[in-house]
Amino acid sequence: MRQVEAGMSKGEATRQFILEQAAPIFNRRGYSACSIQELMDATGLEKGGIYRHFANKEELAVEAFQYALSRSVRIRTEHLEGIPNAVDKLKRAVETFVTTPSAIEGGCPLMNTAIDADDGNPRLREMALEALNSWQDRLAKMVIAGMRAGDIRSEVKPRQLANTMIAILEGALMMSRLQRTKGALRDAQTTLNGVLEGVRCPKK
Amino acid sequence: MRQVEAGMSKGEATRQFILEQAAPIFNRRGYSACSIQELMDATGLEKGGIYRHFANKEELAVEAFQYALSRSVRIRTEHLEGIPNAVDKLKRAVETFVTTPSAIEGGCPLMNTAIDADDGNPRLREMALEALNSWQDRLAKMVIAGMRAGDIRSEVKPRQLANTMIAILEGALMMSRLQRTKGALRDAQTTLNGVLEGVRCPKK
Repeated sequence: MRQVEAGMSKGEATRQFILEQAAPIFNRRGYSACSIQELMDATGLEKGGIYRHFANKEELAVEAFQYALSRSVRIRTEHLEGIPNAVDKLKRAVETFVTTPSAIEGGCPLMNTAIDADDGNPRLREMALEALNSWQDRLAKMVIAGMRAGDIRSEVKPRQLANTMIAILEGALMMSRLQRTKGALRDAQTTLNGVLEGVRCPKK
Repeated sequence: MRQVEAGMSKGEATRQFILEQAAPIFNRRGYSACSIQELMDATGLEKGGIYRHFANKEELAVEAFQYALSRSVRIRTEHLEGIPNAVDKLKRAVETFVTTPSAIEGGCPLMNTAIDADDGNPRLREMALEALNSWQDRLAKMVIAGMRAGDIRSEVKPRQLANTMIAILEGALMMSRLQRTKGALRDAQTTLNGVLEGVRCPKK
Protein backbone atom coordinates (compact mmCIF):
# COMPACT_ATOMS: atom_id res chain seq x y z
CA MET A 1 0.00 0.00 0.00
CA ARG A 2 2.82 2.38 0.95
CA GLN A 3 4.44 1.82 -2.41
CA VAL A 4 1.25 2.53 -4.32
CA GLU A 5 0.76 5.71 -2.39
CA ALA A 6 4.38 6.72 -2.90
CA GLY A 7 3.82 6.19 -6.63
CA MET A 8 0.68 8.36 -6.66
CA SER A 9 2.30 11.44 -8.10
CA LYS A 10 3.57 9.48 -11.10
CA GLY A 11 0.16 7.79 -11.34
CA GLU A 12 -1.56 11.13 -11.23
CA ALA A 13 0.73 12.45 -13.96
CA THR A 14 -0.09 9.45 -16.16
CA ARG A 15 -3.79 9.89 -15.47
CA GLN A 16 -3.58 13.56 -16.46
CA PHE A 17 -1.59 12.64 -19.58
CA ILE A 18 -4.26 10.12 -20.61
CA LEU A 19 -6.99 12.73 -20.13
CA GLU A 20 -5.10 15.31 -22.20
CA GLN A 21 -4.66 12.82 -25.04
CA ALA A 22 -8.16 11.38 -24.82
CA ALA A 23 -10.07 14.68 -24.62
CA PRO A 24 -9.54 15.80 -28.25
CA ILE A 25 -10.22 12.27 -29.53
CA PHE A 26 -13.54 11.94 -27.70
CA ASN A 27 -14.39 15.52 -28.69
CA ARG A 28 -13.68 14.92 -32.37
CA ARG A 29 -14.94 11.37 -32.73
CA GLY A 30 -17.71 11.10 -30.18
CA TYR A 31 -18.03 8.64 -27.35
CA SER A 32 -19.46 5.67 -29.25
CA ALA A 33 -17.22 5.99 -32.29
CA CYS A 34 -14.00 6.40 -30.29
CA SER A 35 -12.26 3.03 -29.95
CA ILE A 36 -9.88 1.89 -27.26
CA GLN A 37 -7.32 1.33 -30.05
CA GLU A 38 -7.36 5.05 -30.87
CA LEU A 39 -6.78 5.87 -27.22
CA MET A 40 -3.91 3.34 -27.10
CA ASP A 41 -2.36 4.87 -30.25
CA ALA A 42 -2.65 8.39 -28.87
CA THR A 43 -1.20 7.59 -25.46
CA GLY A 44 1.28 4.88 -26.44
CA LEU A 45 -0.15 2.84 -23.57
CA GLU A 46 -1.55 -0.67 -23.53
CA LYS A 47 -5.20 -1.22 -22.72
CA GLY A 48 -4.26 -2.30 -19.19
CA GLY A 49 -2.15 0.83 -18.77
CA ILE A 50 -5.18 3.00 -19.54
CA TYR A 51 -7.70 1.05 -17.49
CA ARG A 52 -5.46 0.99 -14.47
CA HIS A 53 -6.47 4.66 -14.13
CA PHE A 54 -10.12 4.56 -15.21
CA ALA A 55 -12.79 2.01 -14.38
CA ASN A 56 -14.06 1.85 -17.97
CA LYS A 57 -14.43 3.79 -21.20
CA GLU A 58 -17.42 5.72 -19.85
CA GLU A 59 -15.49 6.97 -16.81
CA LEU A 60 -12.61 8.04 -19.06
CA ALA A 61 -15.06 9.80 -21.41
CA VAL A 62 -16.76 11.58 -18.50
CA GLU A 63 -13.46 12.81 -17.10
CA ALA A 64 -12.16 13.79 -20.55
CA PHE A 65 -15.33 15.83 -21.07
CA GLN A 66 -14.85 17.56 -17.71
CA TYR A 67 -11.24 18.32 -18.61
CA ALA A 68 -12.22 19.74 -22.04
CA LEU A 69 -15.07 21.75 -20.57
CA SER A 70 -13.08 23.28 -17.74
CA ARG A 71 -10.44 24.43 -20.22
CA SER A 72 -13.13 25.98 -22.47
CA VAL A 73 -14.82 27.75 -19.58
CA ARG A 74 -11.52 29.11 -18.29
CA ILE A 75 -10.55 30.50 -21.71
CA ARG A 76 -14.01 32.03 -22.18
CA THR A 77 -14.25 33.71 -18.80
CA GLU A 78 -10.74 34.67 -17.68
CA HIS A 79 -10.68 37.95 -19.63
CA LEU A 80 -14.02 39.19 -18.37
CA GLU A 81 -13.02 40.26 -14.89
CA GLY A 82 -12.28 43.94 -14.64
CA ILE A 83 -14.70 45.02 -17.39
CA PRO A 84 -17.03 47.30 -15.42
CA ASN A 85 -20.00 47.70 -17.78
CA ALA A 86 -22.15 44.56 -18.17
CA VAL A 87 -22.91 45.20 -21.86
CA ASP A 88 -19.21 45.55 -22.61
CA LYS A 89 -18.53 42.40 -20.61
CA LEU A 90 -21.12 40.40 -22.58
CA LYS A 91 -19.75 41.76 -25.87
CA ARG A 92 -16.28 40.67 -24.82
CA ALA A 93 -17.61 37.19 -23.97
CA VAL A 94 -19.01 36.99 -27.51
CA GLU A 95 -15.73 38.21 -29.01
CA THR A 96 -13.75 35.62 -27.05
CA PHE A 97 -16.03 32.82 -28.26
CA VAL A 98 -15.73 34.00 -31.88
CA THR A 99 -11.95 34.33 -31.83
CA THR A 100 -11.28 31.24 -29.68
CA PRO A 101 -14.26 29.00 -30.29
CA SER A 102 -12.76 25.83 -28.85
CA ALA A 103 -10.00 25.13 -26.36
CA ILE A 104 -9.85 21.50 -27.44
CA GLU A 105 -9.52 20.26 -31.00
CA GLY A 106 -12.80 19.12 -32.53
CA GLY A 107 -15.21 21.95 -31.74
CA CYS A 108 -17.34 22.74 -28.72
CA PRO A 109 -17.34 19.88 -26.17
CA LEU A 110 -20.84 20.85 -25.03
CA MET A 111 -22.38 20.66 -28.51
CA ASN A 112 -20.47 17.53 -29.49
CA THR A 113 -21.48 15.71 -26.33
CA ALA A 114 -25.08 16.94 -26.54
CA ILE A 115 -25.39 15.53 -30.07
CA ASP A 116 -23.37 12.40 -29.33
CA ALA A 117 -25.09 11.50 -26.05
CA ASP A 118 -28.56 11.88 -27.56
CA ASP A 119 -28.83 8.19 -28.19
CA GLY A 120 -28.27 7.19 -24.60
CA ASN A 121 -25.10 7.73 -22.63
CA PRO A 122 -26.95 8.95 -19.55
CA ARG A 123 -23.90 10.17 -17.61
CA LEU A 124 -22.43 12.06 -20.55
CA ARG A 125 -25.85 13.49 -21.36
CA GLU A 126 -26.25 14.62 -17.75
CA MET A 127 -22.88 16.36 -17.84
CA ALA A 128 -23.62 18.17 -21.08
CA LEU A 129 -26.91 19.31 -19.56
CA GLU A 130 -25.14 20.57 -16.44
CA ALA A 131 -22.61 22.42 -18.61
CA LEU A 132 -25.41 24.11 -20.57
CA ASN A 133 -27.35 25.02 -17.43
CA SER A 134 -24.27 26.51 -15.81
CA TRP A 135 -23.43 28.55 -18.95
CA GLN A 136 -27.03 29.87 -18.97
CA ASP A 137 -26.79 30.75 -15.27
CA ARG A 138 -23.44 32.47 -15.68
CA LEU A 139 -24.71 34.69 -18.51
CA ALA A 140 -28.10 35.35 -16.90
CA LYS A 141 -26.33 36.44 -13.69
CA MET A 142 -24.18 38.87 -15.69
CA VAL A 143 -27.37 40.30 -17.21
CA ILE A 144 -29.07 40.62 -13.81
CA ALA A 145 -25.97 42.28 -12.32
CA GLY A 146 -25.98 44.67 -15.29
CA MET A 147 -29.65 45.51 -14.73
CA ARG A 148 -28.98 46.21 -11.04
CA ALA A 149 -25.99 48.39 -11.94
CA GLY A 150 -28.08 50.37 -14.43
CA ASP A 151 -26.03 49.15 -17.43
CA ILE A 152 -28.87 47.09 -18.95
CA ARG A 153 -32.49 48.10 -19.47
CA SER A 154 -34.84 46.88 -16.77
CA GLU A 155 -37.34 45.28 -19.16
CA VAL A 156 -34.78 42.75 -20.48
CA LYS A 157 -35.44 39.07 -19.75
CA PRO A 158 -32.12 37.64 -18.50
CA ARG A 159 -32.85 34.03 -19.40
CA GLN A 160 -33.98 34.96 -22.91
CA LEU A 161 -30.89 37.05 -23.57
CA ALA A 162 -28.62 34.28 -22.22
CA ASN A 163 -30.37 31.66 -24.36
CA THR A 164 -30.09 33.88 -27.44
CA MET A 165 -26.35 34.33 -26.93
CA ILE A 166 -25.69 30.62 -26.42
CA ALA A 167 -27.94 29.50 -29.28
CA ILE A 168 -26.46 31.83 -31.88
CA LEU A 169 -22.84 31.16 -30.82
CA GLU A 170 -23.26 27.38 -30.79
CA GLY A 171 -25.20 27.36 -34.06
CA ALA A 172 -22.66 29.64 -35.73
CA LEU A 173 -19.77 27.48 -34.51
CA MET A 174 -21.36 24.43 -36.11
CA MET A 175 -21.79 26.39 -39.37
CA SER A 176 -18.25 27.80 -39.32
CA ARG A 177 -16.72 24.40 -38.72
CA LEU A 178 -18.74 22.89 -41.55
CA GLN A 179 -17.98 25.74 -43.98
CA ARG A 180 -14.40 26.12 -42.81
CA THR A 181 -14.72 29.89 -42.71
CA LYS A 182 -15.28 32.32 -39.87
CA GLY A 183 -18.22 33.87 -41.77
CA ALA A 184 -21.06 32.53 -39.64
CA LEU A 185 -19.22 33.33 -36.39
CA ARG A 186 -18.48 36.89 -37.57
CA ASP A 187 -22.14 37.33 -38.54
CA ALA A 188 -23.17 36.01 -35.13
CA GLN A 189 -20.91 38.54 -33.46
CA THR A 190 -22.33 41.41 -35.53
CA THR A 191 -25.89 40.36 -34.74
CA LEU A 192 -25.20 39.86 -31.02
CA ASN A 193 -23.39 43.19 -30.77
CA GLY A 194 -26.54 44.78 -32.20
CA VAL A 195 -28.77 42.91 -29.74
CA LEU A 196 -26.50 43.87 -26.82
CA GLU A 197 -26.29 47.55 -27.84
CA GLY A 198 -30.08 47.42 -28.02
CA VAL A 199 -30.34 46.56 -24.31
CA ARG A 200 -27.73 49.10 -23.16
CA CYS A 201 -29.03 51.85 -20.86
CA PRO A 202 -28.30 55.32 -22.19
CA LYS A 203 -25.47 56.99 -20.25
CA LYS A 204 -26.70 58.84 -17.20
CA MET B 1 -32.34 -9.87 -66.76
CA ARG B 2 -36.02 -9.57 -67.64
CA GLN B 3 -36.95 -11.13 -64.35
CA VAL B 4 -34.78 -8.68 -62.39
CA GLU B 5 -36.31 -5.75 -64.24
CA ALA B 6 -39.82 -7.08 -63.72
CA GLY B 7 -39.00 -7.24 -59.99
CA MET B 8 -37.82 -3.62 -59.92
CA SER B 9 -40.92 -2.14 -58.37
CA LYS B 10 -40.71 -4.54 -55.42
CA GLY B 11 -36.98 -3.82 -55.19
CA GLU B 12 -37.63 -0.12 -55.21
CA ALA B 13 -40.21 -0.51 -52.45
CA THR B 14 -37.74 -2.49 -50.33
CA ARG B 15 -35.04 0.11 -50.96
CA GLN B 16 -37.41 2.87 -49.86
CA PHE B 17 -38.43 0.85 -46.78
CA ILE B 18 -34.76 0.39 -45.81
CA LEU B 19 -34.16 4.14 -46.16
CA GLU B 20 -37.20 4.99 -44.03
CA GLN B 21 -36.03 2.64 -41.28
CA ALA B 22 -32.35 3.62 -41.51
CA ALA B 23 -32.83 7.39 -41.58
CA PRO B 24 -33.88 7.85 -37.92
CA ILE B 25 -31.19 5.39 -36.75
CA PHE B 26 -28.36 7.19 -38.54
CA ASN B 27 -29.83 10.53 -37.42
CA ARG B 28 -30.00 9.49 -33.78
CA ARG B 29 -26.85 7.39 -33.52
CA GLY B 30 -24.50 8.93 -36.06
CA TYR B 31 -22.80 7.25 -38.97
CA SER B 32 -19.86 5.67 -37.14
CA ALA B 33 -21.79 4.48 -34.11
CA CYS B 34 -24.64 2.95 -36.13
CA SER B 35 -24.02 -0.76 -36.62
CA ILE B 36 -25.26 -3.03 -39.38
CA GLN B 37 -26.92 -5.10 -36.63
CA GLU B 38 -29.13 -2.13 -35.67
CA LEU B 39 -30.13 -1.72 -39.31
CA MET B 40 -30.90 -5.45 -39.54
CA ASP B 41 -33.02 -5.27 -36.37
CA ALA B 42 -34.94 -2.23 -37.62
CA THR B 43 -35.65 -3.62 -41.07
CA GLY B 44 -35.99 -7.29 -40.20
CA LEU B 45 -33.65 -7.98 -43.13
CA GLU B 46 -30.41 -9.97 -43.27
CA LYS B 47 -27.18 -8.16 -44.05
CA GLY B 48 -27.32 -9.47 -47.63
CA GLY B 49 -30.88 -8.22 -47.97
CA ILE B 50 -29.77 -4.71 -47.09
CA TYR B 51 -26.60 -4.67 -49.18
CA ARG B 52 -28.42 -5.96 -52.22
CA HIS B 53 -29.79 -2.41 -52.44
CA PHE B 54 -26.80 -0.34 -51.31
CA ALA B 55 -23.12 -0.73 -52.19
CA ASN B 56 -21.99 -0.25 -48.60
CA LYS B 57 -22.83 1.43 -45.29
CA GLU B 58 -21.61 4.80 -46.55
CA GLU B 59 -23.95 4.76 -49.57
CA LEU B 60 -26.86 3.80 -47.31
CA ALA B 61 -25.93 6.61 -44.89
CA VAL B 62 -25.68 9.16 -47.70
CA GLU B 63 -29.08 8.20 -49.10
CA ALA B 64 -30.66 8.07 -45.64
CA PHE B 65 -29.35 11.59 -45.02
CA GLN B 66 -30.81 12.80 -48.33
CA TYR B 67 -34.13 11.21 -47.43
CA ALA B 68 -34.17 12.81 -43.96
CA LEU B 69 -33.11 16.19 -45.32
CA SER B 70 -35.66 16.30 -48.11
CA ARG B 71 -38.42 15.55 -45.61
CA SER B 72 -37.19 18.32 -43.30
CA VAL B 73 -36.93 20.86 -46.11
CA ARG B 74 -40.40 20.02 -47.38
CA ILE B 75 -41.97 20.43 -43.93
CA ARG B 76 -40.13 23.70 -43.38
CA THR B 77 -40.97 25.31 -46.70
CA GLU B 78 -44.36 24.01 -47.82
CA HIS B 79 -46.36 26.53 -45.76
CA LEU B 80 -44.45 29.57 -46.95
CA GLU B 81 -45.95 29.94 -50.41
CA GLY B 82 -48.73 32.44 -50.54
CA ILE B 83 -47.43 34.69 -47.73
CA PRO B 84 -46.96 37.97 -49.60
CA ASN B 85 -44.79 39.99 -47.19
CA ALA B 86 -41.17 38.75 -46.88
CA VAL B 87 -40.91 39.60 -43.16
CA ASP B 88 -44.08 37.62 -42.43
CA LYS B 89 -42.76 34.77 -44.56
CA LEU B 90 -39.46 34.65 -42.62
CA LYS B 91 -41.34 34.82 -39.31
CA ARG B 92 -43.47 31.89 -40.44
CA ALA B 93 -40.33 29.95 -41.38
CA VAL B 94 -39.05 30.51 -37.83
CA GLU B 95 -42.39 29.46 -36.34
CA THR B 96 -42.45 26.28 -38.40
CA PHE B 97 -38.93 25.37 -37.26
CA VAL B 98 -39.84 26.00 -33.61
CA THR B 99 -43.07 23.99 -33.68
CA THR B 100 -41.76 21.19 -35.96
CA PRO B 101 -38.02 21.17 -35.39
CA SER B 102 -37.33 17.79 -36.95
CA ALA B 103 -39.15 15.64 -39.48
CA ILE B 104 -37.05 12.62 -38.52
CA GLU B 105 -36.55 11.30 -35.02
CA GLY B 106 -33.23 12.32 -33.49
CA GLY B 107 -33.00 16.05 -34.15
CA CYS B 108 -31.81 18.08 -37.12
CA PRO B 109 -30.13 15.87 -39.75
CA LEU B 110 -27.92 18.78 -40.84
CA MET B 111 -26.54 19.44 -37.34
CA ASN B 112 -26.17 15.75 -36.49
CA THR B 113 -24.31 15.01 -39.70
CA ALA B 114 -22.17 18.14 -39.41
CA ILE B 115 -21.03 17.09 -35.93
CA ASP B 116 -20.78 13.41 -36.79
CA ALA B 117 -18.89 13.81 -40.09
CA ASP B 118 -16.34 16.15 -38.53
CA ASP B 119 -13.89 13.35 -38.01
CA GLY B 120 -13.80 12.33 -41.63
CA ASN B 121 -16.67 10.92 -43.62
CA PRO B 122 -15.96 13.10 -46.64
CA ARG B 123 -19.14 12.30 -48.57
CA LEU B 124 -21.42 12.87 -45.58
CA ARG B 125 -19.54 16.03 -44.69
CA GLU B 126 -19.92 17.30 -48.27
CA MET B 127 -23.66 16.64 -48.15
CA ALA B 128 -24.12 18.44 -44.84
CA LEU B 129 -22.19 21.37 -46.29
CA GLU B 130 -24.42 21.42 -49.38
CA ALA B 131 -27.52 21.30 -47.17
CA LEU B 132 -26.27 24.26 -45.14
CA ASN B 133 -25.30 26.28 -48.22
CA SER B 134 -28.66 25.67 -49.82
CA TRP B 135 -30.53 26.69 -46.62
CA GLN B 136 -28.46 29.90 -46.53
CA ASP B 137 -29.21 30.58 -50.20
CA ARG B 138 -32.92 29.93 -49.77
CA LEU B 139 -33.21 32.37 -46.84
CA ALA B 140 -30.90 34.99 -48.40
CA LYS B 141 -33.02 34.91 -51.58
CA MET B 142 -36.17 35.49 -49.52
CA VAL B 143 -34.46 38.49 -47.92
CA ILE B 144 -33.32 39.87 -51.29
CA ALA B 145 -36.81 39.41 -52.75
CA GLY B 146 -38.20 41.22 -49.72
CA MET B 147 -35.79 44.11 -50.20
CA ARG B 148 -36.79 44.39 -53.88
CA ALA B 149 -40.48 44.32 -52.93
CA GLY B 150 -39.96 47.06 -50.34
CA ASP B 151 -40.83 44.76 -47.41
CA ILE B 152 -37.31 44.77 -45.94
CA ARG B 153 -35.01 47.73 -45.33
CA SER B 154 -32.43 48.27 -48.07
CA GLU B 155 -29.44 48.38 -45.69
CA VAL B 156 -29.97 44.79 -44.49
CA LYS B 157 -27.24 42.26 -45.34
CA PRO B 158 -29.07 39.18 -46.67
CA ARG B 159 -26.30 36.69 -45.88
CA GLN B 160 -25.91 38.00 -42.33
CA LEU B 161 -29.63 37.79 -41.64
CA ALA B 162 -29.79 34.27 -43.11
CA ASN B 163 -26.79 33.15 -41.03
CA THR B 164 -28.32 34.65 -37.89
CA MET B 165 -31.58 32.78 -38.42
CA ILE B 166 -29.89 29.44 -39.07
CA ALA B 167 -27.39 29.80 -36.21
CA ILE B 168 -29.95 30.69 -33.57
CA LEU B 169 -32.45 28.02 -34.68
CA GLU B 170 -29.85 25.24 -34.83
CA GLY B 171 -28.25 26.29 -31.55
CA ALA B 172 -31.63 26.53 -29.83
CA LEU B 173 -32.66 23.13 -31.15
CA MET B 174 -29.52 21.59 -29.63
CA MET B 175 -30.34 23.31 -26.31
CA SER B 176 -34.01 22.32 -26.35
CA ARG B 177 -33.19 18.69 -27.08
CA LEU B 178 -30.64 18.61 -24.27
CA GLN B 179 -32.93 20.35 -21.76
CA ARG B 180 -36.05 18.53 -22.97
CA THR B 181 -38.05 21.74 -22.93
CA LYS B 182 -39.10 24.12 -25.68
CA GLY B 183 -37.66 27.07 -23.71
CA ALA B 184 -34.60 27.77 -25.84
CA LEU B 185 -36.58 27.40 -29.07
CA ARG B 186 -39.29 29.77 -27.80
CA ASP B 187 -36.63 32.29 -26.77
CA ALA B 188 -35.03 31.96 -30.20
CA GLN B 189 -38.39 32.68 -31.82
CA THR B 190 -38.95 35.76 -29.64
CA THR B 191 -35.48 37.09 -30.43
CA LEU B 192 -35.77 36.40 -34.16
CA ASN B 193 -39.22 37.98 -34.32
CA GLY B 194 -37.63 41.09 -32.80
CA VAL B 195 -34.75 41.01 -35.30
CA LEU B 196 -37.19 40.52 -38.21
CA GLU B 197 -39.54 43.28 -37.07
CA GLY B 198 -36.43 45.47 -36.85
CA VAL B 199 -35.76 45.06 -40.59
CA ARG B 200 -39.37 45.57 -41.69
CA CYS B 201 -40.02 48.61 -43.87
CA PRO B 202 -42.66 50.91 -42.42
CA LYS B 203 -45.96 50.63 -44.33
CA LYS B 204 -46.10 52.94 -47.30
